[in-house]
Amino acid sequence: MSDQTTAAMVVIGNEILSGKIVDSNSPFLARELRELGVQLSRIVVVPDEIPVVAAAVRDCSRSFDWVFTSGGVGPTHDDITIEAVAAAFSVPVVEDAELRQSILSMAHDKPSEHLLKMARIPSGAELIHGEDRIFPALRIENVHILPGIPQLFEAKLVEMRERFRSSPYHLREILVARAETTIAGYLDATLAAFPELMLGSYPSMSKAEYRVRLTLESKDEAYVDGALEDLVSRMPEGYVVKIES
Amino acid sequence: MSDQTTAAMVVIGNEILSGKIVDSNSPFLARELRELGVQLSRIVVVPDEIPVVAAAVRDCSRSFDWVFTSGGVGPTHDDITIEAVAAAFSVPVVEDAELRQSILSMAHDKPSEHLLKMARIPSGAELIHGEDRIFPALRIENVHILPGIPQLFEAKLVEMRERFRSSPYHLREILVARAETTIAGYLDATLAAFPELMLGSYPSMSKAEYRVRLTLESKDEAYVDGALEDLVSRMPEGYVVKIES
Repeated sequence: MSDQTTAAMVVIGNEILSGKIVDSNSPFLARELRELGVQLSRIVVVPDEIPVVAAAVRDCSRSFDWVFTSGGVGPTHDDITIEAVAAAFSVPVVEDAELRQSILSMAHDKPSEHLLKMARIPSGAELIHGEDRIFPALRIENVHILPGIPQLFEAKLVEMRERFRSSPYHLREILVARAETTIAGYLDATLAAFPELMLGSYPSMSKAEYRVRLTLESKDEAYVDGALEDLVSRMPEGYVVKIES
Repeated sequence: MSDQTTAAMVVIGNEILSGKIVDSNSPFLARELRELGVQLSRIVVVPDEIPVVAAAVRDCSRSFDWVFTSGGVGPTHDDITIEAVAAAFSVPVVEDAELRQSILSMAHDKPSEHLLKMARIPSGAELIHGEDRIFPALRIENVHILPGIPQLFEAKLVEMRERFRSSPYHLREILVARAETTIAGYLDATLAAFPELMLGSYPSMSKAEYRVRLTLESKDEAYVDGALEDLVSRMPEGYVVKIES
């Protein structure tokens, strides 16, 4: 159970902070990482400002095993992620020869200054190529730089996902017909017996079927099944609506 | 244009980090604050751990005018927001007499220990009562503590929203039929002429109607309209699909 690989996400985007766009990349990443056995431990949404993004990336890089950024890699004035990540690691931004060549080919040797901006990377970054795409994802140290457009973010993450696979989480769920205040004591008792259990309690106001959804998780399957049996056996008849395992 | 009231949101929730639930409270807050003329400058999603939540709340309280927390205020073991916010301000957690009385009435003088936990607040916190609700939102210093269940979060935020109203943002939008690399130079030119303009450029891969959505914003209406005219006049015929103002 000590095998906890951790991750953080830095979302770069004034458009999310100003309510114009709802971020779908962090929920996507959260689900992917969980499935890969990686614990997402922080999501930070920051504005398009180099010092702010640089500080968030640096902090997350030091505190977690993997970092993912979303957004700010296009050709316009508000695309500052490359510069910010370079600043986070105190490296210069350089033009990558391979990317420059791709862009020249694409633009029939007449690229605009702004298109050529897309060849600039933090010095030392790895280019992570996917299928049929001109622009790769980038990696420097433990930080992975992905685009903000959801179709591209998702495609690139899926292409590189096996890099991050760790031992899986085992999840069990219990739907309960009583309120949280009624069952809280049973949860405490099970946690006392299974202190390493990841136990979530989520009340719902919109479901007719149940009032609380309990999630039990561990990387140790026998442990989570032991905790499940323990908790179910503590609750009086009629409390448990459904067990999903 | 110097009237920038800023805000941050701290979302407390393992369920969001583990991909079980998609957070709808931060998009709701982002839209509400924008409408109120307040600039949301940071969103941080943190796990249900007292030291982590306390540090995030303390940092945000110092850096921004308003802070909002979402989640972690229920009666179970994973509800640690009250303790964490108290720790952020180095005050004790105390039982509020008024809340205790409400809970005693509700439970016909036989509340469970876990229900009584709901009477505990950071010492010195203001109770912000809404309509027809037993449990108030709380405020201590510039931090507002709201529940995580979306129906409750939204209702409580709407009830207290006028506390935060500032001078409005004026938004104009331009839909453009060309790629970002093609128009980036025009954006730079307009920004050189209108350096205080908040200018966003959002490419879309899924819209047939346009390729880039530009957003122009300012708290100064004449300024944003001047910038709009400037930018539209720079672009060749056929570039601008639609202007929304």
